[in-house]
Amino acid sequence: MSELRKDPVSRRWVIFSPERAYRPKDYSNSKEDNEEKGKEKKFCPFCEGNETKSGEELLAYDRIPGRKPNTPGWWVRVLENKYPALKNEEDLGKKGVGIYDKMNGVGHHEIIVETPKHHRCLSQLKNNEVEKVIWAYRDRCIAIKEDPRMKQILIFKNYGEEAGASLEHSHSQLIATPVVPKKVETELSGARHYYNFRDRCVFCDILTQELSDKERIVEENENFVSFVFFAGRFPYETWILPKRHSGSFENITKKEVISLAVIFKNTLLRIRKALNDTDYNFVIHMLPLDGEGEHYYHWHIEIMPKLTKVAGFEWGTGFYINPVLPEDAAKILREVDLSEEVEEEKYETQE
Amino acid sequence: MSELRKDPVSRRWVIFSPERAYRPKDYSNSKEDNEEKGKEKKFCPFCEGNETKSGEELLAYDRIPGRKPNTPGWWVRVLENKYPALKNEEDLGKKGVGIYDKMNGVGHHEIIVETPKHHRCLSQLKNNEVEKVIWAYRDRCIAIKEDPRMKQILIFKNYGEEAGASLEHSHSQLIATPVVPKKVETELSGARHYYNFRDRCVFCDILTQELSDKERIVEENENFVSFVFFAGRFPYETWILPKRHSGSFENITKKEVISLAVIFKNTLLRIRKALNDTDYNFVIHMLPLDGEGEHYYHWHIEIMPKLTKVAGFEWGTGFYINPVLPEDAAKILREVDLSEEVEEEKYETQE
Repeated sequence: MSELRKDPVSRRWVIFSPERAYRPKDYSNSKEDNEEKGKEKKFCPFCEGNETKSGEELLAYDRIPGRKPNTPGWWVRVLENKYPALKNEEDLGKKGVGIYDKMNGVGHHEIIVETPKHHRCLSQLKNNEVEKVIWAYRDRCIAIKEDPRMKQILIFKNYGEEAGASLEHSHSQLIATPVVPKKVETELSGARHYYNFRDRCVFCDILTQELSDKERIVEENENFVSFVFFAGRFPYETWILPKRHSGSFENITKKEVISLAVIFKNTLLRIRKALNDTDYNFVIHMLPLDGEGEHYYHWHIEIMPKLTKVAGFEWGTGFYINPVLPEDAAKILREVDLSEEVEEEKYETQE
Repeated sequence: MSELRKDPVSRRWVIFSPERAYRPKDYSNSKEDNEEKGKEKKFCPFCEGNETKSGEELLAYDRIPGRKPNTPGWWVRVLENKYPALKNEEDLGKKGVGIYDKMNGVGHHEIIVETPKHHRCLSQLKNNEVEKVIWAYRDRCIAIKEDPRMKQILIFKNYGEEAGASLEHSHSQLIATPVVPKKVETELSGARHYYNFRDRCVFCDILTQELSDKERIVEENENFVSFVFFAGRFPYETWILPKRHSGSFENITKKEVISLAVIFKNTLLRIRKALNDTDYNFVIHMLPLDGEGEHYYHWHIEIMPKLTKVAGFEWGTGFYINPVLPEDAAKILREVDLSEEVEEEKYETQE
């Protein structure tokens, strides 16, 4: 059973998950170990045909009519994580230990398998396939909102080993937590502060600024803008912001889903092509489930390529050193030639 | 010229250092590249005899009388970083760019070379050698306080490649910044919040709690306690806290320096021996230079072994998953046998 403990100084919650416990000898990182791990990886629980080897199915799209859950024949599939950081069990059990606070590791930890095909990553799917992934994110948000213990939903992806992925097959994750994470609180409080000062949403102002400056824009369409963030912590850190102000991701419209699929895929493709298929993380930032802050918070996606190591300087200070100016990064991303992929998309869609 | 840019949402400053700029091709990480880097590493600018190849000398201890700066014959040596993230030049040049804020990358970035011997790490030095390193930290803090533009000093170490070290020779770093970093602000605001609620320093309360619970203690002596932190973000995250309340590190007494050298070295040794010479970072957390918060802030050292990768989950949420309970980690560290090293220290000190 995992537990949540609160840092009494910074008020950050940490998940302790001793079931996944390591002993010192488990940390060895020799070449033989890695080769052995390579062998183990050949079996993929997310591939079609292996449905019974993964966690319990929570949702599947496009399943062949008449087929049962946990069987082949689907496009997007949402599963319970077999090795969850937080579990949908028991009560919160909040308690004090002297000056410290802790509670049970209650929550949801789900896997969104984005495609049955092992060797295709998100940016290589067709636009309408990416749309389905976005709908799956949204449907799970709606479902989890029913659980009154949950305060925050986080949807994210680790792409590649450097970014923390342990399985190669294209998937993203959803975590729901019984507390509002520190980082979300920091963003909310900054956005509230800005709103109190200027009577405007800081993200709406960022949007206006980016559309006027133009030099950090990567892609733009009717409903979304993607741009390299002015003060990004990482080289090529790229945000996707909806043009319509909305704090809650799940309020996304059908038209916006279609628009987002295109800009999301193309932005990831540009990063993939410009940075030699680099590892990356993305996180969908959204309002806590209590809905407070709807007028000053604005949901968005942050994409963070993993090109630099975070060293002691960063840990200690909260200061990041970014060696690439956003204006230079945006230029490189804009110059990526997507004509081949756009042609292919047209062709496949006509089929 | 580097610049500081402020995130208008989270109010975090980021250093942009395009002089160290990478282009996409620079990110390749193939085996041949690493082998090539290995070759380049053979020359060490921090070794005795190579003094003219490193940055300008700011301080040296135990230099043979009559010898000039930047020559051999010293024990601890403090240098200007040859590739600084921030430079001691020009004025702050604070300005707005639309809704955004930025300023010049003004600051100090120094290297503390802890020993002339290439193959000895901090935990392998004699106690009185570690004392000299601590005095060098303090002397540089005193010197930098003279610069009225500076708001915060950070002293830290990256040990090993995983922790971000680019040179093997034992050294630590000092950075002084013209803004208070976000992470320091978060700690200060948490400590202030606790003080307002309880009229006590949160760190003093942590100390009392740890000395009473005992199960997370690693080492204790007259002036300091080291313990695995109750809510540590990383496995084996260990804090060293002075027993006497003080926000400013530079107010450390001579007696405390002697005490700190012993507990610091022994704690690092225990981590080294228990975790197979793992890479780690440590950071000395201290009050901003304006001195505000002296009654509720408490300087301390945080040591973070680099055993797990920080993945998307952590970035997105500010939530860390720690697979090792602090109570288990502390037990393992306490059980490390240091009798050989203690004997050696006695023997060498008698010499």
